[in-house]
Amino acid sequence: MLERIRIVLIGTSHPGNIGGVARAMHNMGLADLALVAPRCEVITQDSISRASGADHLLHSTQVFATIEEAVADCTLAVGASARSRTLPWPMLTPRELADRLPSECQAPSARVALVFGREDSGLTNAELQRCHAHVHIPTNADFSSLNLAAAVQVLAYECRMAWLSQTDNQQPASDPGDTVRPVTVLEADDELASHAALERYFEHLERVLVAIEFHDPDKPRQLMARLRRLYLRARPEQMEMNILRGILSATEKAAQRKHHHE
Amino acid sequence: MLERIRIVLIGTSHPGNIGGVARAMHNMGLADLALVAPRCEVITQDSISRASGADHLLHSTQVFATIEEAVADCTLAVGASARSRTLPWPMLTPRELADRLPSECQAPSARVALVFGREDSGLTNAELQRCHAHVHIPTNADFSSLNLAAAVQVLAYECRMAWLSQTDNQQPASDPGDTVRPVTVLEADDELASHAALERYFEHLERVLVAIEFHDPDKPRQLMARLRRLYLRARPEQMEMNILRGILSATEKAAQRKHHHE
Repeated sequence: MLERIRIVLIGTSHPGNIGGVARAMHNMGLADLALVAPRCEVITQDSISRASGADHLLHSTQVFATIEEAVADCTLAVGASARSRTLPWPMLTPRELADRLPSECQAPSARVALVFGREDSGLTNAELQRCHAHVHIPTNADFSSLNLAAAVQVLAYECRMAWLSQTDNQQPASDPGDTVRPVTVLEADDELASHAALERYFEHLERVLVAIEFHDPDKPRQLMARLRRLYLRARPEQMEMNILRGILSATEKAAQRKHHHE
Repeated sequence: MLERIRIVLIGTSHPGNIGGVARAMHNMGLADLALVAPRCEVITQDSISRASGADHLLHSTQVFATIEEAVADCTLAVGASARSRTLPWPMLTPRELADRLPSECQAPSARVALVFGREDSGLTNAELQRCHAHVHIPTNADFSSLNLAAAVQVLAYECRMAWLSQTDNQQPASDPGDTVRPVTVLEADDELASHAALERYFEHLERVLVAIEFHDPDKPRQLMARLRRLYLRARPEQMEMNILRGILSATEKAAQRKHHHE
C-alpha cells in the first residue's frame, strides 16, 4: 500500500523543508517524492542535513513542470488545504483520508497523490481543483500555518497507521499496533480512470461546450470548476470515461456538421 | 484539556529543534513547554526562525535541571521511546495515548507530561522508568529515528484529535476553516437534486444521445444503465443538475440545427 502513495510538493522554496519531508517520508515508509517547479535547489547541504540519512529520496525525486504531469498516473489526488476556498470541495480529515487508503490502494495500478503547496501561499485554486478531495489538518485557529515537513509528517503518519491497521502488516507481537478499522470498499467492476485521462476529458469537454455555445471562456462563471468537482466526485472508471468521451465526440460531430452547413 | 498537557524536552542540543517543537505545539493548541538541562541556547536566530511566529513559547519555557523537577506536578508522565528497553514497560501507541487523554485530563489538577529525549540517544533507562508509560510512534524498521520536532508534531496532533473528539470542542460556527468535518462525503453548497429531477435528466439525456446518433435504443448495450450508475454515484446537486440540463439543451440545439440544414 505505502509504495502506491506519492508525496507531491509544489513550488517549495526551502531545501531544508524538502530534506525534512524526505526524512518524514522515509520514517513512515513512503518513498515516492515528486517536486513540481521547485523554487530552490533540491540537493544542498541544508536538505541533506535535514534528510538526516534519507537523502536517497532526494536523489530519486522526480521533478515536473506542472501538477498535471506529477499526478498524471494517479487514481486519486488529494490536496492539502488550510481553508476551504470559494468553491466548496469534498473535504477530508487526515483520519478520514487514512480510512480510505487501503481500498484506494488495492488495485495494482492505483496511485494516490498527496499534494502540498508553497510554504508561503499553499496551493492555488486551480491546483486545488485538480484534486478529487482536499485534506485539512486541524490546527489552532490563531496559528494555522504548519511547517511543510510537519504537515507531511502528520499525513505520512496517518498513512502508516492505515497500513498497520491491515492485518497482514501488523507488527510482531511485541508491538500491539492498532486495531483494524472497517473501510468502505469502492465498488468498481473496472479500473479507475487515471488523472491524465480525466484531464483529457476536461479539455475535450471544454472544447465541446465552447463549440455548442454553452460556455464562454471569457465569462467562465466557475462552470469548469463545477463540472470538475462533479466528475471528480464520481470517480469515473475507464469504461465510463470511454463512454463520456464518446458522447463528446458525437456531440462535436453534430456541432461541426452544423457549422459546415451554415 | 490541551492546557493540561506539557511537552518536556530532555537534553536537547539543537535550538532549531526547540523552535520546531514550539511551532508544532502552538499549531496544535499546546502551550506548556519545559526543558530539562538543554545542551544549547534556547533563544537563538535558529530557534526563533523555526518557531515561525510561536516564539512566545520559547520565552515562556521553564528550564529544569532534572526530569523529576519538570514532571513534579504531573499526574501522568509518558515517555517517547523508540523501542521497549531491557525492562518491559506499559507501552502505548500514539492513538491509545490519545484515547486516554480526555479522562486523564479531567480533574482541574491533572497534568500530563509527554517526555522526549535527546536527538542522538533518546531517553535513558532511568528517565524512562520515571514515566508511567511509554509511547512508541510506529516507524519504518530500517529508519526509525524521527526528528524531535516531527515526533512532537505527531503526538501533539493526536492530542488535538482527542480534544476535538470531545463534543464540546467541536469548532464554533464562527471558525469554519478549523472544523474537523464529520462527513467524508460531499460538501453541498446547494440542495441535492430530487429523484424526480434525476429521472427527467436521464430521459433528456437519452433523447439527446439518440439525436447525436450515439445511442440506438434498439441496441442499448447497457449504455443508459452505465450512465445512470455514474451520475447517481455523484449525487448531483440542483445547481449541477441545471448545468447538465443546460448542456443537453445546447447540444440539442446544435443537433437540431444540423437536421434543419440537411
